[in-house]
Amino acid sequence: MTGSEFQRARSAHAKQAREEAILDAARALGGEGPVRGVTLTDIASAVGMHKSALLRYFETREQIFLKLTAEGWRECGADLRAHLERCDEATPATVAEIFARSLAARPLFCDLLAQAPLNLERNVSIDSVRDFKLVTLHEIELIGHELRRLLGLSERQILDTFATATSMAGALWQMATPGPRVRELYATDPRLGHAIVEVEPRLYRVLDALLTGFTTGGPGRTT
Amino acid sequence: MTGSEFQRARSAHAKQAREEAILDAARALGGEGPVRGVTLTDIASAVGMHKSALLRYFETREQIFLKLTAEGWRECGADLRAHLERCDEATPATVAEIFARSLAARPLFCDLLAQAPLNLERNVSIDSVRDFKLVTLHEIELIGHELRRLLGLSERQILDTFATATSMAGALWQMATPGPRVRELYATDPRLGHAIVEVEPRLYRVLDALLTGFTTGGPGRTT
Repeated sequence: MTGSEFQRARSAHAKQAREEAILDAARALGGEGPVRGVTLTDIASAVGMHKSALLRYFETREQIFLKLTAEGWRECGADLRAHLERCDEATPATVAEIFARSLAARPLFCDLLAQAPLNLERNVSIDSVRDFKLVTLHEIELIGHELRRLLGLSERQILDTFATATSMAGALWQMATPGPRVRELYATDPRLGHAIVEVEPRLYRVLDALLTGFTTGGPGRTT
Repeated sequence: MTGSEFQRARSAHAKQAREEAILDAARALGGEGPVRGVTLTDIASAVGMHKSALLRYFETREQIFLKLTAEGWRECGADLRAHLERCDEATPATVAEIFARSLAARPLFCDLLAQAPLNLERNVSIDSVRDFKLVTLHEIELIGHELRRLLGLSERQILDTFATATSMAGALWQMATPGPRVRELYATDPRLGHAIVEVEPRLYRVLDALLTGFTTGGPGRTT
């Protein structure tokens, strides 16, 4: 290795370490409270950098959180595959339970799933969106293979199942963690008791019914 | 009517007219582009008021849009009831079609349905959240009555159906109207063609399968 190669390797290594420290800080802050409240300044402070220095590593606050969303897809995807691959056969209820448990166990990922199409994907470069989309596409292909094997789902049903599982995990998580005023309202007004949401049981019931409907077949549901 | 009663009536009337002009402006601006991009300053300019004057009529930007979300619930609810009440009997597919068509025909309402739990409900007073929640509760009760009559859904299945219909309408609308960079990406990268979403057909397929699953019964799906 020449001197300049060594320099470059060392600086590439330092850059990566910095990027990881930034992602660690964003992950910790996003895990403590809702992602919507975490600013670039908060992340920079947690890493001990100035905001302008942080922007040499990431385009925007949204790029940081979109990277964490991709990480959530990979981790949750690996967990789903591990559980599905272990099954020789499965009912819609079994698959729904695996999805609901794995998603509900990842509150930060659920929060990010709701933020991604609304905010994150809109404030990053086209390369960042592409990287993110390719991660989701890869996971959907791998898990889709298991859904086809176990339940005989079509390509379109697989995409509809993912859209429902991820959108509902995001939306239910938002409903389950309302702001302080909404929380106070639910606690004090008995007419609104129905509005309290628990992510895992409701996600389970919705996915169970969805997959039962898909596997029951009927007109228009077979392709 | 005494002089001061007349004064009060006239000022109450003027106040209501102002509130309606503000809601009209927010509705028009929200209908043109996504709600996320519409600021209080935009609304104030459109009504020809200063922002500080506008804040005498509404607490926050979010209160204005939460009022429009309640309006959407009432209008969409009336449309759903009109169609459901006309049915002597119905299959899951018929009900799914009625919901998907009515929701997809209201793009501003779909946008607001995604914004409500994430943003709108969090930046208003407890009274504003209560007013909003009671409107949704009332519509769910009325339409729930029809869903019970036509498909025999339980109370919990009715709530799950509403959570799915409204959350998916919101999420699918966000996916179907991505920002310019995501749109460019979909158009230029054939690997991502699957990510293009059409609200109505996907919402129809998901609700059709969900309601089929609910009416098929099975363990855990009957209460």
